[in-house]
Amino acid sequence: MIYLTRRERFNAAHRLYRKEWSDDKNSEVFGKCSNPNWHGHNYVLLVTVKGEPDPETGFLVNIKILSSLVNRCVIDKLDHKNINIEVDFMKDKIATTENLTISIWEILEPEVLKLGCQLHSIRIEETENNFAEYFGNRH
Amino acid sequence: MIYLTRRERFNAAHRLYRKEWSDDKNSEVFGKCSNPNWHGHNYVLLVTVKGEPDPETGFLVNIKILSSLVNRCVIDKLDHKNINIEVDFMKDKIATTENLTISIWEILEPEVLKLGCQLHSIRIEETENNFAEYFGNRH
Amino acid sequence: MIYLTRRERFNAAHRLYRKEWSDDKNSEVFGKCSNPNWHGHNYVLLVTVKGEPDPETGFLVNIKILSSLVNRCVIDKLDHKNINIEVDFMKDKIATTENLTISIWEILEPEVLKLGCQLHSIRIEETENNFAEYFGNRH
Amino acid sequence: MIYLTRRERFNAAHRLYRKEWSDDKNSEVFGKCSNPNWHGHNYVLLVTVKGEPDPETGFLVNIKILSSLVNRCVIDKLDHKNINIEVDFMKDKIATTENLTISIWEILEPEVLKLGCQLHSIRIEETENNFAEYFGNRH
Amino acid sequence: MIYLTRRERFNAAHRLYRKEWSDDKNSEVFGKCSNPNWHGHNYVLLVTVKGEPDPETGFLVNIKILSSLVNRCVIDKLDHKNINIEVDFMKDKIATTENLTISIWEILEPEVLKLGCQLHSIRIEETENNFAEYFGNRH
Amino acid sequence: MIYLTRRERFNAAHRLYRKEWSDDKNSEVFGKCSNPNWHGHNYVLLVTVKGEPDPETGFLVNIKILSSLVNRCVIDKLDHKNINIEVDFMKDKIATTENLTISIWEILEPEVLKLGCQLHSIRIEETENNFAEYFGNRH
Repeated sequence: MIYLTRRERFNAAHRLYRKEWSDDKNSEVFGKCSNPNWHGHNYVLLVTVKGEPDPETGFLVNIKILSSLVNRCVIDKLDHKNINIEVDFMKDKIATTENLTISIWEILEPEVLKLGCQLHSIRIEETENNFAEYFGNRH
Repeated sequence: MIYLTRRERFNAAHRLYRKEWSDDKNSEVFGKCSNPNWHGHNYVLLVTVKGEPDPETGFLVNIKILSSLVNRCVIDKLDHKNINIEVDFMKDKIATTENLTISIWEILEPEVLKLGCQLHSIRIEETENNFAEYFGNRH
Repeated sequence: MIYLTRRERFNAAHRLYRKEWSDDKNSEVFGKCSNPNWHGHNYVLLVTVKGEPDPETGFLVNIKILSSLVNRCVIDKLDHKNINIEVDFMKDKIATTENLTISIWEILEPEVLKLGCQLHSIRIEETENNFAEYFGNRH
Repeated sequence: MIYLTRRERFNAAHRLYRKEWSDDKNSEVFGKCSNPNWHGHNYVLLVTVKGEPDPETGFLVNIKILSSLVNRCVIDKLDHKNINIEVDFMKDKIATTENLTISIWEILEPEVLKLGCQLHSIRIEETENNFAEYFGNRH
Repeated sequence: MIYLTRRERFNAAHRLYRKEWSDDKNSEVFGKCSNPNWHGHNYVLLVTVKGEPDPETGFLVNIKILSSLVNRCVIDKLDHKNINIEVDFMKDKIATTENLTISIWEILEPEVLKLGCQLHSIRIEETENNFAEYFGNRH
Repeated sequence: MIYLTRRERFNAAHRLYRKEWSDDKNSEVFGKCSNPNWHGHNYVLLVTVKGEPDPETGFLVNIKILSSLVNRCVIDKLDHKNINIEVDFMKDKIATTENLTISIWEILEPEVLKLGCQLHSIRIEETENNFAEYFGNRH
């Protein structure tokens, strides 16, 4: 089994808060990440798929097709967007890096299967110091 | 003359637009950077100062003091903020990387002089592919 | 299960050698790393924890609390220190990257449990080309 | 068990194509990577080995010996070479990153055993966005 | 005056040699870079332009337009190509990083003027350790 | 004129202090950098030379010869050494990054001239956030 990773990037605004909490409570839990006027990041997304390389092409999957898929299903919906307001798959979820990786996994898992391989992990780097990674609910 | 650079980072939301323009005109000129719901970046700021090292300490300037200055005067005002709404020195300016470098220069130039050296340049990296740099109005 | 990683850095001096060996033997085994006058590194430490995100906050753990913990228990004891002489948890151990990762694991594992998640791995990058990683004694 | 990684680099030319296919078919499947005049990359190779650290030295393996091994068996054969024409272990294989990782695994696995540890993974970064990783045929 | 930099990348094959020299002489001067079977790199290109920001937009130049220009005039001609054989502006020139920067300068200088600003420098990073930079024939 | 840069690295121990000052005074001025038991860094050194490329080779200078020169004159004296104790050209100087750049300039300037080009700058990166650069006493 070979593991293949495609790195993509998106720039987005977000805010960490719970609607039903007061501003004070949000600020206490989420700190300056709960700023009601938003802040943002250059997110790095790493999509890892796995499977057997095709003996005819030596490719696990054509990485350009994988990149197109990730752009169409994920990046186009997140890039230069407000994650809390504009991103359908993050609706009613708190916009943490943890929740982003799970939501992106759920979108990409069935799509990657159609390419003839399996999704192995979704990793998001929010800053140069903070990363989250999800391997699906079997791990 | 020695040149000393301190790298700092801030995460902020912004939007590129001109109030007096229609949404269509803003979108035509600024593209997806004019999204009314904001987007954001992990900005990298590089502050370069110059002068003669102090023969007693071998320091041009104590870089921790330089870092404190940059944090107090610039980073604390930008980090986890909305550049268009919350940052006094960007008020009524379009929130481009170019304008950010000029505004930060204007704030830091007199302060750096008080540390006994001169400001040489302000560089901002908005993404891993786009950078702006300003050397003051003598260049 | 979600995996969350915090990156921290420390700058330290060290020397690789065995007290009971002659200088020649130390030099033969450890090369220039056994220089009796010390040398040093900018170490990068990556702490990965795992668990279920809290449905109320979307956080596996508040990464600022994790960062404070790592700074208090590990970075403050290593940064700008001599690993062989000044670091209690490296006493009587050879100051290799391998031993550092194991010792840091032992310190952080019980502390991370108190935050409601599990320690998954400790990774140290000694130079841009040499890394060690430890997953505890179950791997 | 400790995991130790050595990073090495090589610069090589290659071309993706199947001899028995027409130029049109090659171009359709491999895109501009099938250019008959070649193109090339700065490849990054990450070799991860695992085992118990030697209690006498604190080393899993002396990383200089590991580096020499990787240079002698792999880098010297790939660096400043044409992968399709000049690299014996890639003969009659399509020069994809996937196939490179498998071939390098096969070369290094028995050699690493002789150093007293096991090969854990071979990772190749072809560009800053595309990576492949192989863990042997047990994964 | 503001300096704005756009980073682009291209992957290409090349060979350093002088037609009129013997293989031995080429090998003596250029070492393994003269391999007749080619080798290649992931080149990084940094294009820096300078001028006054437009007071209406806050842009020195719309960096997407600059990026399109660089892609159309330079990247499309170099990416996934053989620099010695297929790149018109490198014909009859030795394919060194130095010569590449000068040739790209000559192509981009008049084009950048049409965007209303001046070309300041062309920088090429051939590997993570080797870079060349050209500021035009006035420096 | 072309500018060519070679990047090299060295790992060393150092301490910032003035012999004639008390420990308290040293600690007040230099903070934890004055730790008497030393600390250390992975230093990055960037040597930039300038001149006209040789029309016969397209090289400003053969970068391997430049690299050998820098290794022989500078890196071999600093790598895995204690800068305060073991480095002849830093004797009686405070081991700041500023002083290192000046001392390395003084060593390399005459040597680079013998290669047929001029030294343009010496840049040292002490950490990922702190850099010093020196252009000789004409700047």
